[in-house]
Parts: sequence; structure tokens; C-alpha cells
Amino acid sequence: MIQKYEFPSITDTSSQGVLRVFESVNVPFAIKRVFSVLNSEVGTTRGKHAHKKCSQLICCVAGRVKLVCDDGMSKEEYVMTPTSQGILIPAGVWAEQECLETGSVIIVFCNQPYDENDYIRQYEVFLNWRGIKK
Amino acid sequence: MIQKYEFPSITDTSSQGVLRVFESVNVPFAIKRVFSVLNSEVGTTRGKHAHKKCSQLICCVAGRVKLVCDDGMSKEEYVMTPTSQGILIPAGVWAEQECLETGSVIIVFCNQPYDENDYIRQYEVFLNWRGIKK
Repeated sequence: MIQKYEFPSITDTSSQGVLRVFESVNVPFAIKRVFSVLNSEVGTTRGKHAHKKCSQLICCVAGRVKLVCDDGMSKEEYVMTPTSQGILIPAGVWAEQECLETGSVIIVFCNQPYDENDYIRQYEVFLNWRGIKK
Repeated sequence: MIQKYEFPSITDTSSQGVLRVFESVNVPFAIKRVFSVLNSEVGTTRGKHAHKKCSQLICCVAGRVKLVCDDGMSKEEYVMTPTSQGILIPAGVWAEQECLETGSVIIVFCNQPYDENDYIRQYEVFLNWRGIKK
């Protein structure tokens, strides 16, 4: 369902912090939108929607975040960390991100600009859109 | 020396954290490279170099970071926060970022891919490159 991409995580020195670098040549599309999410409480879940056209490359740069991808027929789970690979969530996949650790930060790269009409926010509507009968 | 750009900072709910969104249409160039910096200790300074060709848009998404920009003749200082504007550091400007708060996170967008030859890492060389005599 998903593909994984390598991005370096560089610790300069212990006091100068952690650098994570995303070269556009390693991102599988032209970047139209970027967003960061942080300060989520442990145990809270974000996402809970699918996109009709937008593919997203999701990377953890701090903490630990569990990603669940669901194409309506099967689910895949990944625990993302600052040293794990970036994950491409293709269009048409329901995705949820659960914060597993205080101070977690994710960065998401999108191949489409924001369009509210691209979101499917109800799971039943998603299944119907995928042509899956319950 | 610099220009400022607006990017929304969205708090969904107190438990779901803070979202900061960068639409490419609001970034003044095609994004060739993105990097995040976090876990720097308070009081440490990063950057301390100039780029010959690369312009960078720098945004704080957590904490507080002081940015100092220096064109060799004058300096400008800004304290960046998750609700302050993104700052475009044009090519040819010496820049430093000081971490003012634990848990600070910055995201930097670049209009060039990585090229070690683009960096000027010595201040005296920078002044010479700018044609400024001390």
C-alpha cells in the first residue's frame, strides 16, 4: 500500500540538536504543500481522513508516531521515529497518526495544494468511494 | 535585508497539537530542499554561514529562536515563534540562529539543492566575498 523513502537524520553535536534533511530530488513529487504537526498529547490520533487526489510523504522528526494506513480492505501499521524512513501515503488511502511520545513532531509533504473537496472525512463514505461494500 | 511571509499556525484542539501549514504558492520559490532542526540546547547557536546562491525561508514551528542576519555592513535580529512570520534570508547574507527555549523547532525551505561549494563558513571570507574591507 505504501512506499518508503530514505532521508538523513544528522546529529551535529549533542547540544546543537538534530537536523533532518529532505532533498526534493528524494521526494517523489513536486512539493506543493508542507505542514508540521507537534505538541499533540500522547494517545491522541490525528488524520482520520483520506484524500481523493493528494499523495503525502510523512516523516517523523522527533518522538514516535504510529501511522495506520487503510485501503478499505487491509490495514498497515508503522511506528515512525526520527531515524525511520519517510512513508508515502498514496491518494485514496485512509490514514491515522497516533502520538506515542511527548514532543513528537511530524512533517508532511503534499503533491497538491489545499483543497477541502479532496478530503473524505467519514469512513463509511470512504468505503463507498472505494467501491467496497460492508 | 529580509522579507517576511505569512503562514498560518492552527491549533485544532489543545490535545491534538499545533499544525503549521506552508502552501507552496506562499513560498517565494520552488522548494528544492527542506530541513528541520530541533533538540538544540538553549543558548546554542547554529548557522554561522552564508550561501552564495541559496535563499532560505526560515520558520519557527515550536519554541523561540533568535535569527541574526548580517550583510557585512549591518545586522538585523528577529525573535521567531510559531505565530510569527516566516523570514526569507536572501543569498549572500550571513545568518545565525540562537535557540532561546527548550523544544524549539525550525523548518527551513531552500531554493537550491545541497551544494557544499555554496557555503561560506568563515566570516572573514564572507566579508571579502561581499567586497567589504575591515
